[in-house]
Amino acid sequence: MTLFRPDTARALALGLLCFLFAVTWGAPLIRHLRRRQISEAIRVDGPQTHLSKAGTPTMGGLMILIPTLIFCSLFIMPEYLSLILPLSMLVLIGGLGIYDDITKLRQKRAGQPKEGISANTKLAWQFATAIGAAVVLGSPDLLDMAKVAIPGVSDLLAVPLWLYVPIAALLIVGFSNAVNLADGLDGLAGGVAAIAFASYGVLALRHGFVHLATFSFCMAGGTLAFLWFNAYPAQLFMGDTGSLALGATLAIVALMTLQWPLLPIVGIIFVAMAASNVLQVASAKFSRRFLGKDKRLFKMAPIHHHFELLGWSEVQIVQRFWIVAMLAGMFGIALGML
Amino acid sequence: MTLFRPDTARALALGLLCFLFAVTWGAPLIRHLRRRQISEAIRVDGPQTHLSKAGTPTMGGLMILIPTLIFCSLFIMPEYLSLILPLSMLVLIGGLGIYDDITKLRQKRAGQPKEGISANTKLAWQFATAIGAAVVLGSPDLLDMAKVAIPGVSDLLAVPLWLYVPIAALLIVGFSNAVNLADGLDGLAGGVAAIAFASYGVLALRHGFVHLATFSFCMAGGTLAFLWFNAYPAQLFMGDTGSLALGATLAIVALMTLQWPLLPIVGIIFVAMAASNVLQVASAKFSRRFLGKDKRLFKMAPIHHHFELLGWSEVQIVQRFWIVAMLAGMFGIALGML
Repeated sequence: MTLFRPDTARALALGLLCFLFAVTWGAPLIRHLRRRQISEAIRVDGPQTHLSKAGTPTMGGLMILIPTLIFCSLFIMPEYLSLILPLSMLVLIGGLGIYDDITKLRQKRAGQPKEGISANTKLAWQFATAIGAAVVLGSPDLLDMAKVAIPGVSDLLAVPLWLYVPIAALLIVGFSNAVNLADGLDGLAGGVAAIAFASYGVLALRHGFVHLATFSFCMAGGTLAFLWFNAYPAQLFMGDTGSLALGATLAIVALMTLQWPLLPIVGIIFVAMAASNVLQVASAKFSRRFLGKDKRLFKMAPIHHHFELLGWSEVQIVQRFWIVAMLAGMFGIALGML
Repeated sequence: MTLFRPDTARALALGLLCFLFAVTWGAPLIRHLRRRQISEAIRVDGPQTHLSKAGTPTMGGLMILIPTLIFCSLFIMPEYLSLILPLSMLVLIGGLGIYDDITKLRQKRAGQPKEGISANTKLAWQFATAIGAAVVLGSPDLLDMAKVAIPGVSDLLAVPLWLYVPIAALLIVGFSNAVNLADGLDGLAGGVAAIAFASYGVLALRHGFVHLATFSFCMAGGTLAFLWFNAYPAQLFMGDTGSLALGATLAIVALMTLQWPLLPIVGIIFVAMAASNVLQVASAKFSRRFLGKDKRLFKMAPIHHHFELLGWSEVQIVQRFWIVAMLAGMFGIALGML
């Protein structure tokens, strides 16, 4: 139990440093992105009021990825080599996001529909990376982490590799895309992700993984710096650059702390995003087939648009989702301490 | 070091329970307050744009005080009698706030200026209660807590009673009024207070005060429930009912954990509120006397109005202050762990 040691103070201090680095660098970054016209193409099928958000600089996820990469590589990785895994996920999935954002920009400039790279290419890349990560995690010759901690049970449970690899890969791909879905209102994805990383930081400390705690606090610090500029009305969006990498590395941290059964609790908002999308499509199909009319569960999916159309203000939705995320984080931490 | 025990899970679970209790009760409470026309009188010297906030129900602080009183009295106080002190502070200072809010409402209905009870009466009551609390804290026959923990030093430092009582009383009165000053934008005082209480909850766990941690998480849970309704645009204000009690009990928790040197860090936003007010008056006086003209340090004090007049949106100010509060909390926790 390594929680209360100078190591912990260092983990928190590095998180602060990431924030300070990113927030200082934020204003020049925004100027640079604006000058190069790296700005958002708003999804055409979102609510009407969102069209005014076109023109806001995007790829703000760089504010999260770069400080974490720098500070964790310099100060933590030399001591804890297993940190190579989350850091390479940042590069591989962050790189996919950057490629997607740049493709969207190119398409926009060429006057084509701004759809980014195709969904199949994206999924193929995500699954390839995620399965690779799952094998590194689970393989007895590598990290040997095909185990799971059940709340309240002191012994770890071994998970057979044929079961572990698909679960781990699905968590990584699922959360990567769920954070992407959540990235639809100012401050939403960033705030919820910062809270989830901070919660896993505490869980990592609890279970003696000080390097994962440091990584988590760095991600949380960078995300808070991004939020500084993403607060309503947003001056910057994270883009796929941020959202895909945030989700994938959150799942990696959950897997490496062995506390991954808590991920659907700590990340409940992201689960709700993905679930609302799936349920919406299912309810439409079901009702067309069996009721003969198009009845949908939500006014619009993902679920934050539903509340928007119910009349909640954008800020109310975002802040209430943060509150739920915070309580879910507390609940997850409480379970992780049993 | 009692951090990771079922006790901790119970502390977090009670915090959650306070949230759930308060948030469920919130909608009927707002209807009740609205029906009885218990609504806010906006300070006439604030920015013009705030006048539209008149008519919003107030005394929402009840959502924080009542669940904490109920759950802590039932489940924690019987085991930890020293919790009587923060709970009686809630009653005594919360009562002052309720009296102040009701006085304002009476004055409003009578068509008088809505100034509440006089500043002198308020200060006299605050100081009387705070000195009483300080004596209970410091007296060797009672709690015997005239001590202080210095970050990085393992031994506690004894503080002589003649020094301890005035410091403790000043912290209690100062924070009580500083949270009151911060209560000027939707979500500001509540969000910052919730973060400060959560941080002191962690510090309390670190130093083995599980009852204080529970109290802190209950206060944080109730405050998050209040925030649910206070998110921009606010449906409810906390009133002096909430702000005076939040500040006073935050200081009490800081004193009882012996970690009170960290209070100006964890509560940096509240310190900035009070300091900006003092500096504003001082700069006006100084410039009139020595420069012969009225030069002020801020466009308007307390400091959140300054940023408002600089063109930050209300939500940007509030969320950025939250971010600063979160980082200050992390920094305070890091120091408290050395």
